[in-house]
Amino acid sequence: MPVLNDEVPDEGDFDAGRKRGEFDAITPEDFVRGSSQGNPPGWLGPEEIDRIRGSVPIPYVEIVPVHTDELGRLVEIGSLLRVRADGSLERTLIAGRVLFHENLREAIARNIAKDFGELALPTLPQSMTPFTVAEFFPTPGLGDYYDPRQHAIALCYVVPLAGDCKPQDQTLDIQWCDPHGEQMETFIEQMVDGHGAIVRKALAWAGI
Amino acid sequence: MPVLNDEVPDEGDFDAGRKRGEFDAITPEDFVRGSSQGNPPGWLGPEEIDRIRGSVPIPYVEIVPVHTDELGRLVEIGSLLRVRADGSLERTLIAGRVLFHENLREAIARNIAKDFGELALPTLPQSMTPFTVAEFFPTPGLGDYYDPRQHAIALCYVVPLAGDCKPQDQTLDIQWCDPHGEQMETFIEQMVDGHGAIVRKALAWAGI
Amino acid sequence: MPVLNDEVPDEGDFDAGRKRGEFDAITPEDFVRGSSQGNPPGWLGPEEIDRIRGSVPIPYVEIVPVHTDELGRLVEIGSLLRVRADGSLERTLIAGRVLFHENLREAIARNIAKDFGELALPTLPQSMTPFTVAEFFPTPGLGDYYDPRQHAIALCYVVPLAGDCKPQDQTLDIQWCDPHGEQMETFIEQMVDGHGAIVRKALAWAGI
Amino acid sequence: MPVLNDEVPDEGDFDAGRKRGEFDAITPEDFVRGSSQGNPPGWLGPEEIDRIRGSVPIPYVEIVPVHTDELGRLVEIGSLLRVRADGSLERTLIAGRVLFHENLREAIARNIAKDFGELALPTLPQSMTPFTVAEFFPTPGLGDYYDPRQHAIALCYVVPLAGDCKPQDQTLDIQWCDPHGEQMETFIEQMVDGHGAIVRKALAWAGI
Repeated sequence: MPVLNDEVPDEGDFDAGRKRGEFDAITPEDFVRGSSQGNPPGWLGPEEIDRIRGSVPIPYVEIVPVHTDELGRLVEIGSLLRVRADGSLERTLIAGRVLFHENLREAIARNIAKDFGELALPTLPQSMTPFTVAEFFPTPGLGDYYDPRQHAIALCYVVPLAGDCKPQDQTLDIQWCDPHGEQMETFIEQMVDGHGAIVRKALAWAGI
Repeated sequence: MPVLNDEVPDEGDFDAGRKRGEFDAITPEDFVRGSSQGNPPGWLGPEEIDRIRGSVPIPYVEIVPVHTDELGRLVEIGSLLRVRADGSLERTLIAGRVLFHENLREAIARNIAKDFGELALPTLPQSMTPFTVAEFFPTPGLGDYYDPRQHAIALCYVVPLAGDCKPQDQTLDIQWCDPHGEQMETFIEQMVDGHGAIVRKALAWAGI
Repeated sequence: MPVLNDEVPDEGDFDAGRKRGEFDAITPEDFVRGSSQGNPPGWLGPEEIDRIRGSVPIPYVEIVPVHTDELGRLVEIGSLLRVRADGSLERTLIAGRVLFHENLREAIARNIAKDFGELALPTLPQSMTPFTVAEFFPTPGLGDYYDPRQHAIALCYVVPLAGDCKPQDQTLDIQWCDPHGEQMETFIEQMVDGHGAIVRKALAWAGI
Repeated sequence: MPVLNDEVPDEGDFDAGRKRGEFDAITPEDFVRGSSQGNPPGWLGPEEIDRIRGSVPIPYVEIVPVHTDELGRLVEIGSLLRVRADGSLERTLIAGRVLFHENLREAIARNIAKDFGELALPTLPQSMTPFTVAEFFPTPGLGDYYDPRQHAIALCYVVPLAGDCKPQDQTLDIQWCDPHGEQMETFIEQMVDGHGAIVRKALAWAGI
């Protein structure tokens, strides 16, 4: 099962610690956009992206997927369950870097489709002002958010999904949690590197 | 046609200058909630609401109804066309006061249903933080927003409607306008007492 | 000490449970504005305000007073320590209702001066969009916020104070707490009726 | 006068169209940080930054400098007047890229000091949620904002300056404009590549 990560590497989101392998040149965008051999717009090879990651902050979008009721209240918070390269499980949100020449809305929609499938039916926010900006640093302890690979600046959005969400690629499962339920605290604590803090801020922003 | 306003008075929104008549005791809430003779929760008689309006600021919700595309961008801005008591037409947004013991989400949903019908299928925002707060004063020139009846504090929200919108009650028509189109400026200028300024702020907030 | 509350009653903020007494006609606004016997603008007698409080939601401003460093980060959160009518202590934020014909900025500045003195040197926000809207209901359990006297809609702001803050009127003490410190949790839990939740949302909004 | 631009090139902000020259290796950060020959943290040579600019979006901060009154209202909007490489004048805001391992607050403070001097006494916002996010694309017409050099994602903040602002480096002058005055429209129109639109959004956000 852990080999899953080697088979479908992902240069574009917050899942650090992966081993690089023969499929590194294939990015999730290839699957989403259907061009598995050419270089899609904004695509970068693993050495190139690694080098840039050591030079400038990388803009990201990070999405808290939610289910809402008819009055817009959050009734469930979504998450992805993945297997890391070392075999351990991790719970994460939807995240990915913004590609060159891609706008934020396209980046949000692409990353949701990448992780939750093409039928997730997201309702994107009308404003691109994020509910919070999360600054990930490659140095542990420097800020609230940690990413060993890079300095990333993540614009964070809450996005309701009305459709059918199915785990894609290297995702084991999609799990939902009632923000008012007993398990919410555990759910949040299972998210590492500060992603749980993003969920807490989303809940505070939504008035919970 | 102007008699329409006498037949269906509305104690609860920004349509000043109406004559009081025999149907004053029937509020739009009666129609929405289906109780046309009793006193629904939060209901106040015309003298009572008039007196309170001269004593304290009145909390309102004001909604900019929109149509969005699959990436959440505003493609159309909605408005109501009404006949005033003097026979003139006015273009307005959806607005109404928050009733006693009613929460903001209920007030938003109720006012949308009141003006656009029960099938409008709104997607309410996940956060009740408004995109702007409009302060209406009964004294012309005191602030950007004017309401001869009262000092109102309006929390303003953009709400996408996915369903079938039909004019209700005293509304003549529901009209939509492309925010990038040539007619948008005219559309905004037809809104009086500062409501056009709310649309401008909604567009700025949405990045247009 | 508890008699303090009878001597300086306050019709305008979240300190429920006070006994009404002979000085009820003198409001904090009288002291701030210097007119201790006439009726200042927006002033209402105790019966009048009580009756209105049972009829419509009352707009409030609620302020989280903070000290910031040179980069704008929150280094201390302020609070008021008061004696209730029953002799118990309560920790609160700055809060007060918006008076008739008063704008939000004036209400914020007046309430800060009322509780922290005229030399507090607040830097008011440039935008009146609140970081959260707190809806207080007179029915316990109806929402996150409870106020036995009224249905209040509080627009909440974080305001840095650069000056000299001194307890006024019925306030026993002004206390500050490091948001990263060990005592912050206790500090928050000492706030009743949901005010601690407002502090948590302020911290989340500020990225803490 | 135009040679000014050749003498003090600036790899880090929105002033496109400069010729590269012998001083290219000296960045404004060198002056601010006092290290004029070594490589300050986050510093990149001109070829390196050019290459990266063609590969990934670059995170920026953009600041609308303002003067406020005692109630936090905007009374003046600031701007920089610069000479372009072609000898023409341009009016701009404060902007600069976020350096590697630099947080947003540091980037804001550094860029203000770079353009307005060390005595500008800015009051940075308590939250890093921007009032708008401006997406600059190197392709004209692709979005509202255009930057021939790069795809930049600018987080935009309004920052009050209480101190003494003096033009630095290649800046000719610092000019202030009353947002309610007649000249504001001209002031905004003199800003190219969409920066005027950022001012408009700042005004809308501030309620003007």
